[in-house]
Amino acid sequence: MINKLIANIKKTNAPIVVGLDPMLKYIPQQIKEAAFSEYGETLQGAAEAIWQYNKGIVDAVYDLIPAVKPQIAMYEQFGIEGMIAFKRTVDYCKEKGLVVIADVKRGDIGSTSEAYAVGHLGKVTVGSKSWYGFDEDFATVNPYLGSDGVKPFVKVCQEEKKGIFVLVKTSNPSSGEFQDRLIDGRPLYEIVGEQVAQWGSECMGDEYSYVGAVVGATYPEQGKILRKVMPKAYILVPGYGAQGGKGADLVHFFNEDGLGAIVNSSRGIIAAYQQEKYAKFGPENYADASRQAVLDMREDIAQALAAR
Amino acid sequence: MINKLIANIKKTNAPIVVGLDPMLKYIPQQIKEAAFSEYGETLQGAAEAIWQYNKGIVDAVYDLIPAVKPQIAMYEQFGIEGMIAFKRTVDYCKEKGLVVIADVKRGDIGSTSEAYAVGHLGKVTVGSKSWYGFDEDFATVNPYLGSDGVKPFVKVCQEEKKGIFVLVKTSNPSSGEFQDRLIDGRPLYEIVGEQVAQWGSECMGDEYSYVGAVVGATYPEQGKILRKVMPKAYILVPGYGAQGGKGADLVHFFNEDGLGAIVNSSRGIIAAYQQEKYAKFGPENYADASRQAVLDMREDIAQALAAR
Repeated sequence: MINKLIANIKKTNAPIVVGLDPMLKYIPQQIKEAAFSEYGETLQGAAEAIWQYNKGIVDAVYDLIPAVKPQIAMYEQFGIEGMIAFKRTVDYCKEKGLVVIADVKRGDIGSTSEAYAVGHLGKVTVGSKSWYGFDEDFATVNPYLGSDGVKPFVKVCQEEKKGIFVLVKTSNPSSGEFQDRLIDGRPLYEIVGEQVAQWGSECMGDEYSYVGAVVGATYPEQGKILRKVMPKAYILVPGYGAQGGKGADLVHFFNEDGLGAIVNSSRGIIAAYQQEKYAKFGPENYADASRQAVLDMREDIAQALAAR
Repeated sequence: MINKLIANIKKTNAPIVVGLDPMLKYIPQQIKEAAFSEYGETLQGAAEAIWQYNKGIVDAVYDLIPAVKPQIAMYEQFGIEGMIAFKRTVDYCKEKGLVVIADVKRGDIGSTSEAYAVGHLGKVTVGSKSWYGFDEDFATVNPYLGSDGVKPFVKVCQEEKKGIFVLVKTSNPSSGEFQDRLIDGRPLYEIVGEQVAQWGSECMGDEYSYVGAVVGATYPEQGKILRKVMPKAYILVPGYGAQGGKGADLVHFFNEDGLGAIVNSSRGIIAAYQQEKYAKFGPENYADASRQAVLDMREDIAQALAAR
């Protein structure tokens, strides 16, 4: 699946992933009204609104981008109905040829991590049959529990040719609280990054590993170091746009080959119509605003990479 | 909810939580056959088997124990159908008066952690209404992302009088890979433990905080230190029984008042009938075997506490 991700990136010339994190406040009024008039202001109504909103965006941008990253929390908060909307979104994006990176940040020990890996990336056995639970292409994984927690994911990745992105240095302001603490003079994120390189060496695609890493755009200097620590790991870079990361901050996350990083934008794309810059599209044409925001982001990254 | 947990522990005289982690290989043949004959060897069939199995155990032990801890991965692996079985289990246990600790190990940044917190412990707003998504009593939380990731949970705990257990020192063999690394001469888990005490100070019940910690029974020496670092945090102790922790290992997790810790056993209780010790019950009476295993565990812990 890392090979497909890279092929998609080369084809679209856009190292961009659109974060499908549909908060209700982003969803245009006309979509919410239609959903609530059918299902009421219920969990089901919310799930329907999310799904229609996502579908509009995906239809408008799928030819421009290699991948999407639905954040499962934004669905899980609506209970079972939300999970159904999540699965529907995953399935639809795959039908459209997009690589689906499920931002689930799961991670547990041994057989429990195996259950997560099987449920999100692999097949679960029921008697003499086996079934996909959610069937995404990539999942994000939390490393706090160590190798016991990550290796079951690596095993499923090997079997299914799928991938993971391990949290190394997250984009949020307090990520340093534990991740930056020095261990023998080196920050914890670097130690985790070394492990990512190690785990990934057992699970290589053609050019890059099935085991990637999450490193926030908000920390470009750390990105520069981690790029060297994990040369074969694709870096999923959140924090661009709304969180403050700029095109120029991104160059350090890429390798010389122009590959090695994929940059996420969520709100900046999916709620573009709420920004002054794209206000002319209006809520009715929210998906066109998202398309323009993707084009602008692609240009911003291309310029930054050309200038390095 | 920490007050209710403590009241339940005092009432049952059993600082025990039963881990409802229903792997299909634990489920007696007759339950699987009935479920598969109705729904086939499908995700729905698996979910039905899990639900019937759980119900049998809960009916047999609910009067002996204060709380259950369903591990969501064991349900999530069966996709939407599994999630429905999870919710059904949570709701049923609450009906029976049990405190439900959802072992979800979620954790993300800012608004995303808020969505998890709202979905699992609080109410989500849909238009002019608000709804519970999963509505558990406690959730486990991964601290790797720092305060940004944990504080949204604390906020919901304050509003809803619910609680969390933050992963501090996990029970698995490789938990030391990152958690034991020394920072200014002290292991990371101790630094995390200090933060747990800090977060918890903003969210106190009558005697203990709504913010607890997870510390594995397999690491009793670390438990002794962490008990002092977080005097007001309830400690959820996994790793007893099947993972190797013994009654004598547990004493350090408790405070002088005999409170402060609740010990989880999953396989050791729910699949007791598969152990030689309880084989006489047979698969037909698997729930009676579970009841006996709870009684034995209660005795083991009581003896260990009496002997200290």
